This record gives sequence, structure tokens and C-alpha cells, in this order.
Amino acid sequence: MLIGIRGTFLDFTGDPFFQEEEECTRFFSDGLLVIENGHIIEIGNFNDIAPKFSSLSIHHYPDRMILPGFIDAHVHYSQIGIIGSFGKQLLDWLETYVYPEEAKYVDPEFSRAMASLFLDQLLRNGTTTAAVFATVHPQSVNAFFSEADKRNMRMIAGKVMMDREAPQYLLDTPTQSFNDTKELIQNWHRQNRQLYAVTPRFGITCTADELRAAENLKNLFPDVYIHTHIAETHREIEYTLQLFPQCSDYLEVYESFGLVTPESIFAHGIHLSDSEFQRLSEAGSTIAFCPSSNMFLGSGLFPLFKAKSHQHPVPVAVGSDVGAGTSLSLLKTLNEAYKASALLHQNLSPLQAFYLITLGAAKSLSLDHLIGNFEPGKEADLVVLNPQATPLTNLKYSEHATPLNIKSLSDHLFTQICLGDDRSIEKTYIAGQPVLF
Amino acid sequence: MLIGIRGTFLDFTGDPFFQEEEECTRFFSDGLLVIENGHIIEIGNFNDIAPKFSSLSIHHYPDRMILPGFIDAHVHYSQIGIIGSFGKQLLDWLETYVYPEEAKYVDPEFSRAMASLFLDQLLRNGTTTAAVFATVHPQSVNAFFSEADKRNMRMIAGKVMMDREAPQYLLDTPTQSFNDTKELIQNWHRQNRQLYAVTPRFGITCTADELRAAENLKNLFPDVYIHTHIAETHREIEYTLQLFPQCSDYLEVYESFGLVTPESIFAHGIHLSDSEFQRLSEAGSTIAFCPSSNMFLGSGLFPLFKAKSHQHPVPVAVGSDVGAGTSLSLLKTLNEAYKASALLHQNLSPLQAFYLITLGAAKSLSLDHLIGNFEPGKEADLVVLNPQATPLTNLKYSEHATPLNIKSLSDHLFTQICLGDDRSIEKTYIAGQPVLF
Repeated sequence: MLIGIRGTFLDFTGDPFFQEEEECTRFFSDGLLVIENGHIIEIGNFNDIAPKFSSLSIHHYPDRMILPGFIDAHVHYSQIGIIGSFGKQLLDWLETYVYPEEAKYVDPEFSRAMASLFLDQLLRNGTTTAAVFATVHPQSVNAFFSEADKRNMRMIAGKVMMDREAPQYLLDTPTQSFNDTKELIQNWHRQNRQLYAVTPRFGITCTADELRAAENLKNLFPDVYIHTHIAETHREIEYTLQLFPQCSDYLEVYESFGLVTPESIFAHGIHLSDSEFQRLSEAGSTIAFCPSSNMFLGSGLFPLFKAKSHQHPVPVAVGSDVGAGTSLSLLKTLNEAYKASALLHQNLSPLQAFYLITLGAAKSLSLDHLIGNFEPGKEADLVVLNPQATPLTNLKYSEHATPLNIKSLSDHLFTQICLGDDRSIEKTYIAGQPVLF
Repeated sequence: MLIGIRGTFLDFTGDPFFQEEEECTRFFSDGLLVIENGHIIEIGNFNDIAPKFSSLSIHHYPDRMILPGFIDAHVHYSQIGIIGSFGKQLLDWLETYVYPEEAKYVDPEFSRAMASLFLDQLLRNGTTTAAVFATVHPQSVNAFFSEADKRNMRMIAGKVMMDREAPQYLLDTPTQSFNDTKELIQNWHRQNRQLYAVTPRFGITCTADELRAAENLKNLFPDVYIHTHIAETHREIEYTLQLFPQCSDYLEVYESFGLVTPESIFAHGIHLSDSEFQRLSEAGSTIAFCPSSNMFLGSGLFPLFKAKSHQHPVPVAVGSDVGAGTSLSLLKTLNEAYKASALLHQNLSPLQAFYLITLGAAKSLSLDHLIGNFEPGKEADLVVLNPQATPLTNLKYSEHATPLNIKSLSDHLFTQICLGDDRSIEKTYIAGQPVLF
């Protein structure tokens, strides 16, 4: 059964941080995307493509912008209940809010209910793929993958590994962590669209043995992800280096255990040294830039354009980092990415911004053969964006409605970064299927 | 005709930056506010007050929080059409987007349409009073006050005075500026709820003669406001001091012309010296803190807690500063105020935050005998806030729903700062009348 989606399409074929925007942005004013069995089989101008398909069930979205599904590179599903809790910096935040909340995920039913709510909220915000922290409990991972699989969403997730510096009720041991994670990988990794991330919380909460367990898992299953945190605050960095005195910087802690790989996602990276940027660049590891969270916890401003430089290009994606981030909306997160960059006197262009949550994220996560743009063969995850969903976006849109070209679409996208929220997301498609919300 | 509003009320009787929060926060879990002819005549517990009034038309809002109407201390109504325009810092922003847009307000019909749209958006966001820049055109002021008066909203506004360093089509002359402003003051100041602000744009766009015209107007009408900008960016400060070489700092430019008064509102003040803070404190002038705009233009982080210090307390209110601000919602602006402060390692408490947009703003603007809290005698401008308007606010509210006390209300207010937007505003009352939107 062939599905055709008709409307204005915009996606990327290259990186607008390093190429001219016009060269790497693809745009069809009246386009047609043809989907078969959840995969894209063709995209082009409606008038060129439509005649080739005699029986096509067409979903027509006039006056909408259709983009690849958004990708959230760092988020804690288990913190959705403490979003917007008051007044702490990172280490106190964990102790005061995060750990007591994560304790609740010992209950598989609670985990399942929260996973369900979380995933529906992602869909409501146009996010179709995310790299997700569960909790230390294997049942929190089972619940998450089970709900993600039910929705057929491409998700990366993993059980938190931590064996010190957190309340006893949240600790595992290196052996148990290894065994639990191994079983979860065997059960879930590449099960339909699910992907596993070995997830040591961060250096502070992991002994050398725990990190060695992570290393062993990565050796055993070379294509799994590594997902952790790095260099979010100065206090965290200092404490980490006290705990690993043999390491000369934070990244070396992870390097010592073979965790700095092309499949590694490091959240934050605000306070990395030039040498650490250089080594991340060489390893091809990803930094998840989490501006909402970084400002909320007062952690600092990530130097995005330093990471996206010719000198030492590091793959960068964007994370909402809920619960310390204050919104699951990647539109709102891009608003804060723009502001964080502006405070460093750099202007993140709208096309660069949307690249970061679509193809840029897919490339960073080594998923660009599957998702990230509308290339034939890829999975048909996409977002139908209504640029007129609220009175002010409607005002802005009406003023600049025509003609549609890359410049005007870029302006419309910037309006969405500044003013958009979940109301802008008219419809989200997962593998070619519209999702109701 | 007596109107009674029943629900949970919260307002302030003092300044939570300088007093214990419990001492200066007033709260009625099941309260009743009685209104006659647009003014509050009584507030208290429903059970205590209701029996005293035999015929009361009661508007009951269960599970809602009722707060004094929000006050926006700095906003440009004439920039609503360019909100969310891309990529400039202050001086280029003015040249590229602001001036061409403001030129349109030469047309009284356009001015009226935009004033109407702008005021309706304020109401939709719970803002009942604002200090507003119109444009250089008297017709833009007439249109604005006329629409504000039609809605019976208490507004402060004025014609921009500027006679240099902007396109010719937007310049006035000192004589014309004086005459136009004088006529506008005579027509509108204290006309029903309207209040006038003499509005020299800022030092760069005003010759000494133009500032002298402003000074003469303030002498002629001593109770009008002065509304201008100060110390938003380093480049602006440097250029201002080149233009006024006899002044040793930015504030001295305004001091030289008698414009630093208790009725003066200075937007931004990010880069003020200690001496300037001290002199603003002595003068009792107000700083309008505009975090959304300051981050959007990359101007910097206003040191809120330096202004709210015992050393040199300066009255502070919060401005959305649309168009450079990205939202008219003061809830969203407080989100950014929280983050800007967090980046300076200070935590703005939820009660402090709401003080800044209610009683704190009213005091700063010398309007606390009329608005800002629920004291009998004051005008009944208020906001009915729905703490469960979206799935995530609903989740947070349900988890912490009882018991209602100042601590739990403070938590609910923080949720609104983090997650709230126009959807949280269920109803806005102007002078005792519910406004439909």
C-alpha cells in the first residue's frame, strides 16, 4: 500500500555549518513524498512524481512545512515528573530531585506509565527519535523499550550504570550491572527499531570496575552506543578528577576504559579543553548540546561554534535534557540554543539549527543511513509543522507568506524557533503512519 | 453591582527580596474577592466574607490560582510584527528590522490595527498594564491610547523622541517633538486609566536639544513618566559617550537633562557601573530587566541580585521587550529571568519572580496605590491561572496538588515559570470585568 504525502518539504543533504546553506538544503514547494512499508521510496515535485503512481493514498497538507522527524540526543525519561523543580545546581539537583524520583522506577508499572506518557509527549513535540536515560532498574528499560516498540519509534536507551556516590537504593554493582545490561542488549538491541546504549551515568557515580564493565559490554557488542555525561560544571569536573587522580582531564577517564568511540554520546561538554575537543573530534564522538538545561542549572554556555569548527569538528546534536531542561520541545530548545550562542556572540542560523535536530543528529548518532532526511530508502519519520498555529506565528507567517524559497522558509523556521511550541506540530509520522495526539 | 470572585488567591504585601517570603506573601486557599465599580472592596476567606454580602454575583474558579494582573515594564507595541527576526545585535537590529517596521506606523489605521492586536495579545498572556514604546509618529500614540482606553486597560505609553542617527523618515526635531508630546500629554495623560511617558529613544538618537525638550516636558508635567534605554550593549555605551564626551558615564547623559527621576524607567541596565547603580538607587528610578531580549540580542546578563541588594537597592521590574524579546508572555519571560540569574549563580525564587511582575512592578512604577495586589481600594485587574492547562503542567500539578500552602503554591508557580505560556491564562479581568479571548 503506497502512501503519498503532499506539501512543502524541507530537508538537508549536507552540513550548513560547513557548506553554503543553499547547497545543502533541499526544498520542494509543492512536493510529494511516496512511502511504501514505512520507507521513503521517492521524493520530488508533485507534478513530476504524481503521474508515476496510479494508486496513491494522498495526505495533502497545504500551507504546512514538512520536515524530517526531530531527534533529541539526550533526555532522561525518568525525570519527566521533576521537570521545573526549583533552584539547584547539578550535584545538588541530582541529590534533591533526581535520585528520589528515579527510585520510583523500581516499579515496572510506574515505569510503563511514565514511558508511555513520555513517548506521547515526544510525539506531540515532533520528536521521533531520542537517546534516552532510563534508571538503574532493568525494568525501567524494559518498560521504555516495550512502549517505544509498541509505537514503532526508533529509540536509543539504556539502563543507568552506577555503583557509588548515589543513594544505596539506586546503586548496582559492576557484576550485576554487566549482567543486567548484557541481558537487556540481547533482548532489545536491534529488536525492530530499538537500539541500546551502554549508559554509565558519569565518572563520579562509577568506580573503575563499573567503567570496566561498560568497556567489556562495548567489546562484546561493538555496535551499541555509549551514553554518558561530561564537563557540565566545574565542581563536577574537579570532583571527577579527585576520584580519578591518574587522569589529567575528564575525557581521559572515559578514554581509559575505551568509551570514547564513534558510537559515544557525551551530554553537555560545556567546559572541555581544546585538547578534549581535539580528541573527541578524532574519535568521532558526539556532544549533545543541552542549552535549556545548561541555563536552568546555571552550568554555562556550550561553545557550539568551537565544536562546529574546521579546527576540530566534533559531531554535535541537541538534547532537551528533561528534567533539567524545561521543555521536551526541540523548537523551544533551539530557541535557547540560539540565545546561548548569541550570548557568545555567534548567530545560529535557522537552517543550521534545524540541521542539528535532523540530519546533523542522525549523522552524529550514525543513523543517517536510516533517518534524518527524505532520501529514498530511509524510514519515513516526519513532522508536519503548522506555521500559523498561534496568533503571533500567524501574523508573522501572513506578512512573509510568499514566495516560498529557501530564504523565506528559513525565516519561517526562525519564527518557529522563536515562537513555536507543541502547537506548531500538527502531525507526526512514524514509519509512514500518522500518529494521533 | 457587586461581583465576587472565588478561588485561591495569592499576592504580595512586601518585597520577598528583602523580607521573609512568608511574611510578605498573602494567600487564601478558598478566598473571596469582592469588587464594586471596578475596585476591590474586600478580600479574605470565603467563609468569613461571603455572609457579609447578601447579593453577590459569584465567579467561582475551583482549582485555579488567582494573581494580580501582570505588569510588563518595557515593550514596543510597534515591534510586534518583527518579533523573532534573525541574527542581529542591538544597533544592527534597529537598522535592519526596527526602523523599517516603525515607519509603517505613519499610517493611523495600521497603528490602530496593530495596537488592537497587541493589546489583545497582552490580555491573552495575563498582562494588564505595560510601559510601552509607540513610534515617533503622534498617530501611533493616539491609536494606542485609544485602543487601550477602549479596553479600559491601565497603560503607560509615549511617542518616541529622536532627532538623529536613524533614517530621516523617522526623525523629528526638538521643537516638533516638544509640541507633539505636549499635545499628547494634554490629551491622554490621566485620561481614564492612561498615563503618559516622555520617551526619548536613547542617547544615541537624541541631540542635547532633544533631551532638553524632554527635560522641559518633565518640568511642565512633573508627574509624567520618563521611558528610555540604558547600557544594553558595550558598543552602545561607547558610542553614546562619543556623542556626549562631557559625560563620564551613560547615566550622566540622562542626569544632565534631569531625566533620572522616581518616574523614570530605564530598560536593560546590563552594563551599569557601581556608581550608576548607586545613583539610580538614590534617584529611585526603575530598571526594566528584559532577559528574553538580552539573550536574544546577545547583550548580556543583567545582575538582578546586584540591583536588589541592600547596598544600593534599585527598583526593578520585568520587561518582555518585544520585538527583541521573543514572547509577550511574562511567564516565559520569568523563565528566562530565572535562567539569566542561574547563569550568574543566583536563584530567583518563584515568589520573587512573581513579585517582580505584580507588586514589585507597581511599586517601581509608582502605581502601587492603584494596582499590584488585592488591597481594598485598588483597581481589580487580575489573572486566573490554570495550573493544569497542558499535559505536563497537569502532571506536575497532580503530583503536588495538596495541601495548598505558600510552599506548595510557590512550587506550582515555579512550574508555571518553567512550563507555562498563554494557555495557562484562563481569564484576565480588567477593572473587575472578565475579558474574553
